[in-house]
Amino acid sequence: MVDKLWGGRFQQGAASWVEDFGASIHFDYQLAHEDIEGSLAHSKMLSKVGIISEEECAFIQGGLKEILADIEAGKVQFSVQNEDIHLNIESLLTEKIGSVAGKLHTARSRNDQVATDFHLWMKHRLPDVKAAIKNLQTELVLLADKHADTIMPGYTHLQHAQPISYGHYLLAYFEMLQRDYERFEFNEKHTDILPLGAAALAGTTFPIDREYVADELGFGNIYHNSLDAVSDRDFAIEFLANASMLMMHLSRMAEELILWTSFEFNYLELSDSYSTGSSIMPQKKNADFAELSRGKTGAVYGQLMGLLTVMKGLPLAYNKDMQEDKSGTFTTFDTIIAVLKVFTGMLETVTVKKDNMKAALKTDYSNATELADYLAKKGMPFRQAHEVTGKLVFEAIQEGIALEQCELKALQEHSALIEDDVYVVLNPMTAVNKRTSLGGTAISNVKKEVVRAKGILASKM
Amino acid sequence: MVDKLWGGRFQQGAASWVEDFGASIHFDYQLAHEDIEGSLAHSKMLSKVGIISEEECAFIQGGLKEILADIEAGKVQFSVQNEDIHLNIESLLTEKIGSVAGKLHTARSRNDQVATDFHLWMKHRLPDVKAAIKNLQTELVLLADKHADTIMPGYTHLQHAQPISYGHYLLAYFEMLQRDYERFEFNEKHTDILPLGAAALAGTTFPIDREYVADELGFGNIYHNSLDAVSDRDFAIEFLANASMLMMHLSRMAEELILWTSFEFNYLELSDSYSTGSSIMPQKKNADFAELSRGKTGAVYGQLMGLLTVMKGLPLAYNKDMQEDKSGTFTTFDTIIAVLKVFTGMLETVTVKKDNMKAALKTDYSNATELADYLAKKGMPFRQAHEVTGKLVFEAIQEGIALEQCELKALQEHSALIEDDVYVVLNPMTAVNKRTSLGGTAISNVKKEVVRAKGILASKM
Amino acid sequence: MVDKLWGGRFQQGAASWVEDFGASIHFDYQLAHEDIEGSLAHSKMLSKVGIISEEECAFIQGGLKEILADIEAGKVQFSVQNEDIHLNIESLLTEKIGSVAGKLHTARSRNDQVATDFHLWMKHRLPDVKAAIKNLQTELVLLADKHADTIMPGYTHLQHAQPISYGHYLLAYFEMLQRDYERFEFNEKHTDILPLGAAALAGTTFPIDREYVADELGFGNIYHNSLDAVSDRDFAIEFLANASMLMMHLSRMAEELILWTSFEFNYLELSDSYSTGSSIMPQKKNADFAELSRGKTGAVYGQLMGLLTVMKGLPLAYNKDMQEDKSGTFTTFDTIIAVLKVFTGMLETVTVKKDNMKAALKTDYSNATELADYLAKKGMPFRQAHEVTGKLVFEAIQEGIALEQCELKALQEHSALIEDDVYVVLNPMTAVNKRTSLGGTAISNVKKEVVRAKGILASKM
Amino acid sequence: MVDKLWGGRFQQGAASWVEDFGASIHFDYQLAHEDIEGSLAHSKMLSKVGIISEEECAFIQGGLKEILADIEAGKVQFSVQNEDIHLNIESLLTEKIGSVAGKLHTARSRNDQVATDFHLWMKHRLPDVKAAIKNLQTELVLLADKHADTIMPGYTHLQHAQPISYGHYLLAYFEMLQRDYERFEFNEKHTDILPLGAAALAGTTFPIDREYVADELGFGNIYHNSLDAVSDRDFAIEFLANASMLMMHLSRMAEELILWTSFEFNYLELSDSYSTGSSIMPQKKNADFAELSRGKTGAVYGQLMGLLTVMKGLPLAYNKDMQEDKSGTFTTFDTIIAVLKVFTGMLETVTVKKDNMKAALKTDYSNATELADYLAKKGMPFRQAHEVTGKLVFEAIQEGIALEQCELKALQEHSALIEDDVYVVLNPMTAVNKRTSLGGTAISNVKKEVVRAKGILASKM
Repeated sequence: MVDKLWGGRFQQGAASWVEDFGASIHFDYQLAHEDIEGSLAHSKMLSKVGIISEEECAFIQGGLKEILADIEAGKVQFSVQNEDIHLNIESLLTEKIGSVAGKLHTARSRNDQVATDFHLWMKHRLPDVKAAIKNLQTELVLLADKHADTIMPGYTHLQHAQPISYGHYLLAYFEMLQRDYERFEFNEKHTDILPLGAAALAGTTFPIDREYVADELGFGNIYHNSLDAVSDRDFAIEFLANASMLMMHLSRMAEELILWTSFEFNYLELSDSYSTGSSIMPQKKNADFAELSRGKTGAVYGQLMGLLTVMKGLPLAYNKDMQEDKSGTFTTFDTIIAVLKVFTGMLETVTVKKDNMKAALKTDYSNATELADYLAKKGMPFRQAHEVTGKLVFEAIQEGIALEQCELKALQEHSALIEDDVYVVLNPMTAVNKRTSLGGTAISNVKKEVVRAKGILASKM
Repeated sequence: MVDKLWGGRFQQGAASWVEDFGASIHFDYQLAHEDIEGSLAHSKMLSKVGIISEEECAFIQGGLKEILADIEAGKVQFSVQNEDIHLNIESLLTEKIGSVAGKLHTARSRNDQVATDFHLWMKHRLPDVKAAIKNLQTELVLLADKHADTIMPGYTHLQHAQPISYGHYLLAYFEMLQRDYERFEFNEKHTDILPLGAAALAGTTFPIDREYVADELGFGNIYHNSLDAVSDRDFAIEFLANASMLMMHLSRMAEELILWTSFEFNYLELSDSYSTGSSIMPQKKNADFAELSRGKTGAVYGQLMGLLTVMKGLPLAYNKDMQEDKSGTFTTFDTIIAVLKVFTGMLETVTVKKDNMKAALKTDYSNATELADYLAKKGMPFRQAHEVTGKLVFEAIQEGIALEQCELKALQEHSALIEDDVYVVLNPMTAVNKRTSLGGTAISNVKKEVVRAKGILASKM
Repeated sequence: MVDKLWGGRFQQGAASWVEDFGASIHFDYQLAHEDIEGSLAHSKMLSKVGIISEEECAFIQGGLKEILADIEAGKVQFSVQNEDIHLNIESLLTEKIGSVAGKLHTARSRNDQVATDFHLWMKHRLPDVKAAIKNLQTELVLLADKHADTIMPGYTHLQHAQPISYGHYLLAYFEMLQRDYERFEFNEKHTDILPLGAAALAGTTFPIDREYVADELGFGNIYHNSLDAVSDRDFAIEFLANASMLMMHLSRMAEELILWTSFEFNYLELSDSYSTGSSIMPQKKNADFAELSRGKTGAVYGQLMGLLTVMKGLPLAYNKDMQEDKSGTFTTFDTIIAVLKVFTGMLETVTVKKDNMKAALKTDYSNATELADYLAKKGMPFRQAHEVTGKLVFEAIQEGIALEQCELKALQEHSALIEDDVYVVLNPMTAVNKRTSLGGTAISNVKKEVVRAKGILASKM
Repeated sequence: MVDKLWGGRFQQGAASWVEDFGASIHFDYQLAHEDIEGSLAHSKMLSKVGIISEEECAFIQGGLKEILADIEAGKVQFSVQNEDIHLNIESLLTEKIGSVAGKLHTARSRNDQVATDFHLWMKHRLPDVKAAIKNLQTELVLLADKHADTIMPGYTHLQHAQPISYGHYLLAYFEMLQRDYERFEFNEKHTDILPLGAAALAGTTFPIDREYVADELGFGNIYHNSLDAVSDRDFAIEFLANASMLMMHLSRMAEELILWTSFEFNYLELSDSYSTGSSIMPQKKNADFAELSRGKTGAVYGQLMGLLTVMKGLPLAYNKDMQEDKSGTFTTFDTIIAVLKVFTGMLETVTVKKDNMKAALKTDYSNATELADYLAKKGMPFRQAHEVTGKLVFEAIQEGIALEQCELKALQEHSALIEDDVYVVLNPMTAVNKRTSLGGTAISNVKKEVVRAKGILASKM
């Protein structure tokens, strides 16, 4: 007979490389804490409802706590022969307390056990993600506050479009991260459901008390269908989808950090702590960490696609394919925490070259909209105003001068509506400050939004 | 000068094939209704705050309503030369009411306009998705109610594991769909935000009233950052992620419909209305629609991956890449609505072969757990009980008999704990009915869960 | 009985919306030409081996040719009731020639028929893709030839690294496209295999002659396994993978076109024919087509992921899921042809601002490597040379001067190895021209590589 | 100054967690062998062309070989402080031979060095992949040979379609794997190109000899463009695309292994060495390794999508994002080698239940096509023959009998063309054996194809 906990009817074991291929201990050792936490609650319940005696329970609890202490002390070496974290711990428990350890697995199965561990793991990690997002948001708000009146070109199509406040720009990322935050918050809803008690797939004939276990483990809800309990991985896919959107946002900021620290833009300088050099070109100062973060977007998208592919077309209930749910989720958690921290650090230490930002507004024609709006306000249909302005810009480019450098006479040849007050309108700071519509870039708005953002952050305590 | 609404400074137009490549009217014509809806609200607001006169507003409103009527009557032919739905409608408006049409675009840009149209489109569609999910859930509950006491093998690893109620199985999908429903409900949160008023990227200098527009269009929230307003596509990615998870669930049900209508399983027969035949093999009755639905999972996953890829690394604010956001989203909406409807129809008309389901429990050893639990309850540590049962199953397989066909004496050779009452325990209906733990498959549970499910459905009215 | 070509045993038809859901005529009408081509060859073979008479063959051939002419003349309206292109054409044939049309489907099935159509479609399209790649390569070589001696900063990490020839840069894309070309060429290998004759899945009992059909249709190979013939879609996945890599390359060039036409870089100006403006900002000239091309990368990646997902875990042989193979492949073909053409057009008409490129090399320290190499050549270990140069660059940045502006004395304080000849070394043109190592950027090299590239292009005739 | 090999101009180092985030030594330690191999060739060339002395070369070579020996002996602990494998090894070299180690990096950069290591790694691994594919192909051919005359139902839509030879089925996978083999073979073309000598991005001013290095390292080709050399990762994407298609094929076989070892199909039994049991259900024997392999398809698809995403839109030349190219590629190599080995092992030890396969052909109407073809051969148009057969099947199903059990009279009521010889035609073995068309399932064909397959395998030696 095969010496496995499930080996009763087996005549012949797997070769060790096959065993290694099938084992999940390589990555699910990361569930050790949650596995023991779940077993502590399970055994307490078993005793409470009388399935095991109080004495047996005490033995099991004692043993489990010792194992946890051993693990934390780095004394435990997990074995591939024991496949996964569950069998590893059960085997360690047997070593410690003998055959009574075998009673722990009453009224449960590895199917509901692993689902419980994974739910618990996620329950423990989502607050970390939210906290890391909040930290980055906090940094953005601080910087936005400081740079409410730093002006720079706003871009569309990577072309100068209209002057904006750098603080306004920073708050755009605050908003994106706020949605990310809310998504991870929603992620808690489908994470906070207890699978334990579903047993292999159909529930159990033992008189278990799932509410008790849920309370012990801090779960707000319980799966109401045992088949669903063991075959649901939605909470992990939600996590990967949320992580993908988060990385998408951060990849955009990364792109801009890379652009803006380039020789050409020269708006920002990253601190030495968040830059690297070149082994061959000593003058280089690379935004390596922004680039690497942007690159890691690929891996996170890939994990999402991977788990969706795994689950596609799987019949109920548990299938071994689902063992592939954890490794990528674990890695993704590590990635997003690190990337959020890196961005927070980069922004904390970045040098903002305000003068360069402002200087970029010279002769970039980003005040053209002002002229079109000016004409429209004087009664010209907007489409015509746009056309007139277009022609003016074309001529100015030909002559190599800024709009504000055109003489009034020359301007008036295009429209008699243009008067001397046009030069105020063409000033970039005017352009920024007149955009007081809700959500607009006016400095007064930015200051208001900073206050609002601080309120949102405060409410997260 | 180029005859385009943006052509002021251009000397030379694009060739028609280039124009065609750049145009989005091929698919964004589907936004016609939302575009006009947005323009109606925008012009009403422009007049209310005095940017245009009441008379101008009346002209514009009249013209837009006529265009809408024309479109609905199929009288309008959109033109590629006008690129997109916005310029097409503006051009039609100019035809109808002359140059006053040019005033409509005051204080807005195509950037906030297209975002508004797309948000509105999604706002209008999410209730349809929720309704379609609810319909399928309703069908599942009806069928589960009817088949609470239809028993069949429950599977793990596609192996018979333990007997379950077919109604219990159906309710597992009710639960999955409930999470899908909740995700699309959450999707409304980030859809229900008005971008209009963000203008090109920075807000506008006109004294607009965004709250008024939000009220007119039924938006609960307004973007507080103009850069974010024009460059956010989270709501569409959320939609595609939710659609991917929904399709993943349905692909699992599809797989089972295909398996269960096979010659080998023979648990279900689809109605002729939801099957097709073969052009060469007259005996075939294929679960084509389940297969096609499963296949469409690929396209939906692909759209998710596609839009995530589009948005990766894009600097703020609008970039033309983002034109690629709509086509796949529109298709995905059509796909999931159709697939949900197909599943509802398949279940409404399916024939359940109860006798075959029950017969499959003979000699499948799916009652082995019962024996292990029986031994455990009599005091044997579970792991040992598992081992004893494993040996017994092995012997029974060798002899080709079911466990319940083993003589008591033979059983007792393996453990003296086995008594005559074991035969009741080994009956599959007993096995089902004893799984009364919360979420377990006992028929009494299934009935309770049907009631709960009906309550959830009722609360969705 | 249901009035379908496969309806023999069916009592009840599908509702029209279900029919519509299941139908593929919406997109497989694009196979009309190939379907008829295949049927012409099949019927000729049937007659040749005596399965149908010469007279029957003549009727069928005549009818098919008429249908083809009708389609080309735009006279044919396909019907959803007839599901797909195969049944549509068979139904048209029956209208034309009566019941003898029924003999055409002898010894084949829709399974091998659709596979044949799809293979033929791909066989016809791959040369178009190769030609479009070649056109873009040709344009790159012409431009590289012209700009062999145009120098500019070479970038790593988007930082100025070392001076390079713009012609050298352009040839990098020639190389990437050459690999793309070779991949589409390899794609032909697994496309050029005839499935017809595999029938439904197992071959046929009719004495068909597959070699004859292969010759008629120009196939170089024949599937040697009937199950494989009807269930293989490798050639389409290869196509999507190749298209993804191609789009990845072009998205990189797109990124650079966008960067280089920005206000900050200002190295290139796209012609008006390949730019667009803004509806609100008249000064904008956007690299819209480059952006849109970059965006379309998402859709192409998505199609690849989609088809891989479709095929995952499908049992042999044909399953309806596979109907999802064509739509995305057709779209992808249209996309890559258009994008290749757009890039060719953009490069044909781009204005290269040579002076700006050259000017960007001032005070960018991209000649730092020259100094390090200079020191290394004078005997300093490279790592030390790197360090010395690093310090020098740091000081120069502090002082705001270029390396070549440092006085010799100041330089010699860092190393006595530095002599007057260092100033020649620090000249960017020297830096370019000394990189004569194979594949290096020296102008002499670029000219050699242009010749080599022209040779490669010539060999493609 | 920062104590890094690139630290010359840096004032402040990164925190250790930032360092850890940026480091690649966590996974690129797997390139240790290739890195040393590359350095051995590089230093030999440096000496040959006189850039370093023979003595210096001897020192370097000696040091490198010692390091390699140390690594193989498990004596080396790599350090995160040294970022990557290149700097780790250079640092070890400096420890061993002092500052002369600094000369090794002359005329190269980490950009061309890492590209070279990665190319070499792939060059060394592709033959392993091909060998593993060949092993599985060999097993398939052996089994096909043995089971040429084992007959079973062939499926389409998972419905019994027509009887086939099990050997024929197995050879379908031989064909798929043959295409996989050819793809990995083609993969060698774009792998077998030497980047070393491209230096950072532009080539080098040192008089290096790239042909010599290529010869030393066994490369057949050399990159002709230095920018391309350092920024090309096509060979890795090709590998991931090929691996995805391979996994797609194997996921299909996995699906069938899972189905066919189910209680319902019962065609195959996996050996105990390639099955596992359940911790709660002792009767279970799960095709765990097939399931896990099917599941791993997700991860491989994800890696492909990940790397494509990484590379999208990256400007030339090297960017740090590209560091994300290796980890997923390494994992994918391990995965496909293991999965191929697992499948080889499963097939080597599987028990084929020939009688069950044959028995499944009873009353499954998979001989219906025979009847339709029979009628068509007697002159009835195929479409009519199909219809007549359809009606007959419908009646037989109603009566619960097989077609061959229908009395001649009853058959003749449907068509007078039916005669006594129909019963031979309806025998499944006849059905198989008459499919002698090229690629058809006739046993004589299968035997021929086995010979052909053996020839293909032999040619791979």
